[in-house]
Amino acid sequence: MKVGLLGGGQLGQMLAQAGSKLGMSCRALDTSSNAPAGQVCELLTGSFEDQALLEKFSVGLDVATYEWENVPLATAAVVAARVPHFYPSLANLEIVQDRLDQKNFLKKLGVPTAPYQPVGSQAELLAAVRVLGLPVVLKTRRLGYDGKGQRVLRTPDDVEGAWERLGGVALIAEGFIAFEREVSIVAVRGSTNETAFYRVAANEHREGILRVSVAPAPGLSPAQQAQAELVAGRIMHALGYVGVLTVEFFEHEKILLVNEIATRVHNSGHWTMDGADTSQFENHLRAITGMPLGSTTLRDHTVMVNLIGTMPDAKAVALVRGAHLYDYGKEPRAGRKLGHINAPASALPELLALCGK
Amino acid sequence: MKVGLLGGGQLGQMLAQAGSKLGMSCRALDTSSNAPAGQVCELLTGSFEDQALLEKFSVGLDVATYEWENVPLATAAVVAARVPHFYPSLANLEIVQDRLDQKNFLKKLGVPTAPYQPVGSQAELLAAVRVLGLPVVLKTRRLGYDGKGQRVLRTPDDVEGAWERLGGVALIAEGFIAFEREVSIVAVRGSTNETAFYRVAANEHREGILRVSVAPAPGLSPAQQAQAELVAGRIMHALGYVGVLTVEFFEHEKILLVNEIATRVHNSGHWTMDGADTSQFENHLRAITGMPLGSTTLRDHTVMVNLIGTMPDAKAVALVRGAHLYDYGKEPRAGRKLGHINAPASALPELLALCGK
Repeated sequence: MKVGLLGGGQLGQMLAQAGSKLGMSCRALDTSSNAPAGQVCELLTGSFEDQALLEKFSVGLDVATYEWENVPLATAAVVAARVPHFYPSLANLEIVQDRLDQKNFLKKLGVPTAPYQPVGSQAELLAAVRVLGLPVVLKTRRLGYDGKGQRVLRTPDDVEGAWERLGGVALIAEGFIAFEREVSIVAVRGSTNETAFYRVAANEHREGILRVSVAPAPGLSPAQQAQAELVAGRIMHALGYVGVLTVEFFEHEKILLVNEIATRVHNSGHWTMDGADTSQFENHLRAITGMPLGSTTLRDHTVMVNLIGTMPDAKAVALVRGAHLYDYGKEPRAGRKLGHINAPASALPELLALCGK
Repeated sequence: MKVGLLGGGQLGQMLAQAGSKLGMSCRALDTSSNAPAGQVCELLTGSFEDQALLEKFSVGLDVATYEWENVPLATAAVVAARVPHFYPSLANLEIVQDRLDQKNFLKKLGVPTAPYQPVGSQAELLAAVRVLGLPVVLKTRRLGYDGKGQRVLRTPDDVEGAWERLGGVALIAEGFIAFEREVSIVAVRGSTNETAFYRVAANEHREGILRVSVAPAPGLSPAQQAQAELVAGRIMHALGYVGVLTVEFFEHEKILLVNEIATRVHNSGHWTMDGADTSQFENHLRAITGMPLGSTTLRDHTVMVNLIGTMPDAKAVALVRGAHLYDYGKEPRAGRKLGHINAPASALPELLALCGK
């Protein structure tokens, strides 16, 4: 079984690692010849607009997928036309690439989200603020990730000229939710409509980047777990989805509001590599290759700590009982995800101290 | 950290997979360009006697190790002279490559084994049989594995001409132990003398090839576990050992007699990939790279089923709750290890049915 990966970052790398155990061979496509997936599988490098490269990438693949929802739709379409299967589908990809389309889709499904308004001009922004009140969160409709392309407007002064400051492009304004925490669920649906759900994780961000996930989310009730599964299941069903899907929620007074969905394996699901029977990476591959899904049963209460910008001393991490260090082999750079640590939940204070947090 | 692997079979492949998660990059050397490690790391191919190739293999390595104890000593010596560290050491390798040296070493340590006699001629075989009685197990001193290069002599007729039939080479005759089962322990020792031990597994062979391991070995007493650890620890200490070491025992009336030792990760330790906190592969890499050892704590009572000659239907395996299929990506051939399945111990009957056993 030959699997194509659009994007060869750490998600592609971990997919390829999971695939190699299953006897699948992966081929990644990335713009960088240093892409982490290249350490563990075949890597083609060049522009995502290079038609000849996309054709070369597609040759002999049984299925293709992506590690990144901002892969250009035209690129995805070229590959999808050349391989027997492409999951999650082009239509799914199209919906999540536009925050407004995504929100409209969720609204139609009856899934609770923050209130929102489309913003195509400064005048529309003012109108949106009148409807939503302040603060509002202003986001580009396309191409945002890790907190990039968004801004919180708290005062009328912040609103002044905000549309231009975000590039004068199509935006979406969302009512500000004073949430207590962000939680997320990783879900998976096979090509036979089979679904499975991991335990909901609690996520802590700093500067827009995920720092720590704890699974299961402490204090989350069984009813909330059930609600998260219901929402993720309804989304996957409506999308005719195949693969791993992640749903991020704001938790506010025990209510879960969908923040956004990601049609891929997700940083907040890295804990499944050690904390669940089957990792999100293996289950994504099982789903897109038509295999039955693996058990998502919790093995251990687990914490995942992202390693941003610098790597901790590997020997010190190795001394933490039950800790597993994942090093993506990337060049250190400020704000860059270089690796993560999975460990028993009780090890969190020790890990945070080690990582200088 | 760059790690060299002499041998690129499935053991090398699984070492490279474990290494890639730790951010180590591996380079394997094998005679075959289809060697499984080549799917997950750099692979150099050619003769183990090719000096230029060995030099190329050694360039830039921080440490080298081997997945196979029959790697020619001269090859190992060339590499060991060119890399900062070579573990387990040349001296260790030399001892295990010769069954008689290995037995003499164990005897000197006071470790219980089957009685044995060196056999360098038919006359010496007759003398050995007089001392040991029949049956005896006659083995080549060098280059045997998976039951190859050995024969059980049960009657005086079997003894007739047996030395010539095994090639007229240096042999060792061992008293036949009517053991109830074979068990093994995977142990590890770091470069700082730290040791760790996995739970003893029970191993079932057919035609000299391991078929099934169950860990922990059912019915094994805590005293037996302690004895196995004591023996493995004594051996590692005496060898000044660094890396994973496997000790195979015959169990006879609750007594554990050492059958043989392997200075490497071992098929009977594959269960650790899912059944223990840290796999034998990760712990071997931790040991040889000077990192603290990972926890060997049991996660789950686990069974490991080897896939010999043919692969079962992957979808059927995936339906077994908690089962993980490892496919080495090798061409199927009778008697060849193509992969293995780890699963909860309760799944054994289901797995054996699936694998047609």
